[in-house]
Amino acid sequence: MPPVVYAALVHFPVVDKHGHVVTTSITNLDIHDISRSARTFGLEKYFVVTPVEAQHWLAQRVLSHWDTGWGATYNPNRREALENVQLVTDLGKVAEQVQDKHGQMPLWVSTSARSYPNSVSFADLRRRIASGPDQPICLLFGTGWGLHPELLIESDLILEPIVGPTGYNHLSVRAAAAIIFDRLLAPQRE
Amino acid sequence: MPPVVYAALVHFPVVDKHGHVVTTSITNLDIHDISRSARTFGLEKYFVVTPVEAQHWLAQRVLSHWDTGWGATYNPNRREALENVQLVTDLGKVAEQVQDKHGQMPLWVSTSARSYPNSVSFADLRRRIASGPDQPICLLFGTGWGLHPELLIESDLILEPIVGPTGYNHLSVRAAAAIIFDRLLAPQRE
Repeated sequence: MPPVVYAALVHFPVVDKHGHVVTTSITNLDIHDISRSARTFGLEKYFVVTPVEAQHWLAQRVLSHWDTGWGATYNPNRREALENVQLVTDLGKVAEQVQDKHGQMPLWVSTSARSYPNSVSFADLRRRIASGPDQPICLLFGTGWGLHPELLIESDLILEPIVGPTGYNHLSVRAAAAIIFDRLLAPQRE
Repeated sequence: MPPVVYAALVHFPVVDKHGHVVTTSITNLDIHDISRSARTFGLEKYFVVTPVEAQHWLAQRVLSHWDTGWGATYNPNRREALENVQLVTDLGKVAEQVQDKHGQMPLWVSTSARSYPNSVSFADLRRRIASGPDQPICLLFGTGWGLHPELLIESDLILEPIVGPTGYNHLSVRAAAAIIFDRLLAPQRE
C-alpha cells in the first residue's frame, strides 16, 4: 500500500517578519504550484487553510475555472492537479477528514526554515513513510514568515530545515514544498 | 573550489501546448522564486532570457524596487537573492559572460519533463559537479510547455526528468528548478 501523506498550507496562525501573528492572503500561485507538486509526488490531498471565508469564495472561483470552466479543456493537467485541493477554515477540519477516512488522526509534521532540538531528519521521516501503511502524515507549511510557534510546539514532529551549501535559507514556500515532497517521496535513486 | 553552476530561464525559443514556437512573458514570481532557490543552493548567477526588450524594462523595475527602492529595507533577504539575477536577450549573452569570467564556454545542460536516449542522470551530473573545478555548467529551464527542441538538440547534455511515484509530471518550472538545484547541489545526506 502506498504511503498516505497530506499537505496543508497554513494562512493562520503564521508570523510576519516581526514574529507577530498574522493571517496571510491566499495566493493563486501557491494553489497551482503546490497542487502540481503534490500530484506529482502522489500526495493524498492538499489542504489550503484559512479562516477568511471571503477568500474561500475567491479561491473556489479559481478552482472552478480549471475544473468545470474554460480552463478544464484548455489545460486538463492543471485540472487533474487541482482536483486534490481543498479549502478548509482550520486544521481541525483537516483532522476530521483524515479521521473519517483512515480511522485515526494524522501525524502532524511541521516544516520550518529553522532547526529545533527535536527536529526529525529527512532520512528518518522518509524511512517512516516508506515502511508502509502506518498513521497518515500531514505536512504543515507556513505562509508569511512561517508557522506560528504554537503550531510548531503542538506538532508531533518538526522536519529539519532544507539546507543548501550556503547560509542563505529563504526559499519560497512553493520551492520548499517541492523539495520536501521530492526528498520524502521520490522513488529511491542511485 | 566550489562548483560553478549557472541557471538560465528561457522565454524564447520555447513551445506552447501544441509544440509551436512561442515567446512567453516574464513573470514576477519566476524571478523571485528561482532567484531565492538559486541563492540557497549557491548558484553563480540566474539569467532571465528574453528577446523582448520592453520586458527587460518591466523586470528591471521590479529588481530595482527590491535593490534600491522601498523593498531593499523591507526585505533584505529578497534583495540578496535578486542580486544574482540578470536579464539578457539571448543565450549568446550568457555564453559571452561565462567565457569572459571563466575563460571557457559553459557546458549547456537542458532540463525537460521528458526522457531522451542520451539523458544524463541526476547522479552522474551531481558527481561531475562535485568532482571539482571543471567547465562551468549552465542549466537551461524552459517556460511555457518547455524548451524548443532546437535547444535540446544543441545542448551538451539533457538532464533526466524529475519522476515522482505517479505518472503525473507537470511540475511548475519554479518547483522543478528547486528540486533540480537540491538534487544536484545539496550537501550529501545520509
